[in-house]
Amino acid sequence: MNCEVIAVGTELLLGQIVDTNSSWIGEQLALAGIDSHYQTKVGDNWSRIEEAVRQGLERSDALIMCGGLGPTQDDITRDVIASVVGSELVLDETIAQRIRAMFKSRGRDMPENNLRQAMVPEGARPIPQQPGTAPGLIVPVSSDSGQQKVIYAVPGVPYEMKEMMSGTVIPDLQQRAGLSSVIESRVLRTWGQSESGLAELLGTRINELETSGNPTLAFLASGVEGIKVRITAKAATSSEVALILDSEEEHLRQLLGDLVFAVDEHNMESTVLGILAERGLRLGVIETTTAGFITHRLGTAPSGTQAFSGGVTARGPGILSYLLRGDPAAVQPEEAALQLARVARGILVSDVGLATTAIEDPSQGTEDQPFGTAWLAVSMEGFETVEQVKLPGDLERIRQFSAISLLNLLRLHLEGRR
Amino acid sequence: MNCEVIAVGTELLLGQIVDTNSSWIGEQLALAGIDSHYQTKVGDNWSRIEEAVRQGLERSDALIMCGGLGPTQDDITRDVIASVVGSELVLDETIAQRIRAMFKSRGRDMPENNLRQAMVPEGARPIPQQPGTAPGLIVPVSSDSGQQKVIYAVPGVPYEMKEMMSGTVIPDLQQRAGLSSVIESRVLRTWGQSESGLAELLGTRINELETSGNPTLAFLASGVEGIKVRITAKAATSSEVALILDSEEEHLRQLLGDLVFAVDEHNMESTVLGILAERGLRLGVIETTTAGFITHRLGTAPSGTQAFSGGVTARGPGILSYLLRGDPAAVQPEEAALQLARVARGILVSDVGLATTAIEDPSQGTEDQPFGTAWLAVSMEGFETVEQVKLPGDLERIRQFSAISLLNLLRLHLEGRR
Repeated sequence: MNCEVIAVGTELLLGQIVDTNSSWIGEQLALAGIDSHYQTKVGDNWSRIEEAVRQGLERSDALIMCGGLGPTQDDITRDVIASVVGSELVLDETIAQRIRAMFKSRGRDMPENNLRQAMVPEGARPIPQQPGTAPGLIVPVSSDSGQQKVIYAVPGVPYEMKEMMSGTVIPDLQQRAGLSSVIESRVLRTWGQSESGLAELLGTRINELETSGNPTLAFLASGVEGIKVRITAKAATSSEVALILDSEEEHLRQLLGDLVFAVDEHNMESTVLGILAERGLRLGVIETTTAGFITHRLGTAPSGTQAFSGGVTARGPGILSYLLRGDPAAVQPEEAALQLARVARGILVSDVGLATTAIEDPSQGTEDQPFGTAWLAVSMEGFETVEQVKLPGDLERIRQFSAISLLNLLRLHLEGRR
Repeated sequence: MNCEVIAVGTELLLGQIVDTNSSWIGEQLALAGIDSHYQTKVGDNWSRIEEAVRQGLERSDALIMCGGLGPTQDDITRDVIASVVGSELVLDETIAQRIRAMFKSRGRDMPENNLRQAMVPEGARPIPQQPGTAPGLIVPVSSDSGQQKVIYAVPGVPYEMKEMMSGTVIPDLQQRAGLSSVIESRVLRTWGQSESGLAELLGTRINELETSGNPTLAFLASGVEGIKVRITAKAATSSEVALILDSEEEHLRQLLGDLVFAVDEHNMESTVLGILAERGLRLGVIETTTAGFITHRLGTAPSGTQAFSGGVTARGPGILSYLLRGDPAAVQPEEAALQLARVARGILVSDVGLATTAIEDPSQGTEDQPFGTAWLAVSMEGFETVEQVKLPGDLERIRQFSAISLLNLLRLHLEGRR
């Protein structure tokens, strides 16, 4: 089973919007164990969309088309699909009712052209999830060779697309992949080991699972988001699958220890903030080199932000002198980091203070402390630490990696691992 | 002349890296007036890359291939191009010397497999710019119909790719588009008007230019980066082109007035920070809803960051009470914004204070001040203001638009426009 992705929209070709949808879909397909060899962007142009769909149906078993499902004349994904599969567009009353109800709930009348969105190619099924006005579609296709293929149409609005992908498209694809049983995945998110290091830690287990074939394991390196370990299990029912996933997760956690920081969609920020929120603790951060990156990640975490008190970014000498109670040039970066973490607790009215400093100017580096050396500091009741790390890459990557490493340091302490 | 983009790399399909390169290239092509109808991502797989190249050469005049030029066995872009155009790979001594020199300057011996990068299809020319070890290529292709086509190969590392695109690929494409004279563009970046509003302001001038044909104008909406107005001029020499661009820029600035905030690669942050740096003023910001977004943009601006003193992000009630000198719930958001802008000058040791507040919780909205209402405040010697704006979209867009609107408000004052 292989599935390709066609993103529809002239604004994508013009670079007005970066196509993060295809990247997200690509990752979900990889995690679900479905091959994807091509991703194409095409403008709102009938003949070029049609060409992309025909070619996709020739070389792949399934297509995911993202975008072009809105109510305007530009939105022609539905129409092109109907033309390619040789079906008429017919009004789907279920979808029409949903759209009418949505307008009514906002106290507005539905413009007639919104009914365009309820037109579906004959034989197509609507995707049950419909968080916005645009409906998603599952369109079965009988190819010339008699092979059953499928086109999924999902909206370009990211949260609408994601809900349909997770709720319908991925499970449907897994079922079509010849797997009539229930298949589900769980992702353990790790930080602190390379991919080859993880493979070594899990070597024996990977060999055992290769023999049994259920569950399976896969790795996915995701930069500053760490390396993801996906467990995929199948069984007759969802609850049996959950039992397999639970047991494998426990097994892997024993092997991986404190490398696992979160599961599925949780990230490092929401993990740390979640632990703090449970304990009624508040977090403050003072940044220098990272220039607001840590504050912004904590302030926009998917959950737990109630535990985030705030952040200070100090770039000018005045504010640095104030925070360090003296001349910044006279303080070693290691001392400075610890001092800033302490000060963060006071001025940000919080129980836990974090801070980083770094050699961010190549001309200031020394042999012992080259460009990219960073100091990570934590201060809270009964615990204080400052760690020195050497980070690779340019300033942007140094910022990202010191942010995530600092949050990981706090996590390890909160979990009693350090 | 139309040009398609093929991004090569399995990591792109797996979603480990978001393909921002293709978006950037798409924008540059649009700004240069070159049509681009397709963008494809394909993995590091010989037959699939080859298929994409063959198809691209059928339907387009030019291909830009991005990625797969590194020294490892996975990097096969060079090899596939040679195979498709029916050329042998030969060692290019110029490139080999460059790579050897680059290793020598870092005090390292060059591993032999790096010479792979100096192999080019016979008949191809290296791109003069080569900021990293990966060389870029211009490969002329004679199609069956006798038409001259071209493949450009550029590395996937963004700064290397960008330097080659701007320095060679875009000018070369423009020349091939039948334009033997020098063609250059300048982009005026605007904030504060819709695309149709700009078209109205420039209507007469657009009509005049349509008759003369030189220079030409084009609009490009870029979300939170504003709307770009591109002037493209041609002439026999580069200095003549510069004269045309200067004169047209002056003309448009008269029509657009304070809507123009920057030129070319400058953004709103570097514009504002640049003015402040010139006057020896320092800037501090206090954020609430924007949660570190403004601080991070100012702290990582392409230039002028020496004028940025720092930022405070206040999310918890403790830090907010401290900054507002009282109960945050008792202060109207308008007053709060102004108060925070004043406080920013003191605590961040700066001459100019900025702050925003907003209705960020839909349940807190009222009819007069619904979700998305934001207050933008500036405080500096001799000037204080707070403005209320109503911003569309979700929380992420409200954050982005209040950040840019606030910086624009300060710019207008600094330029003496308000």
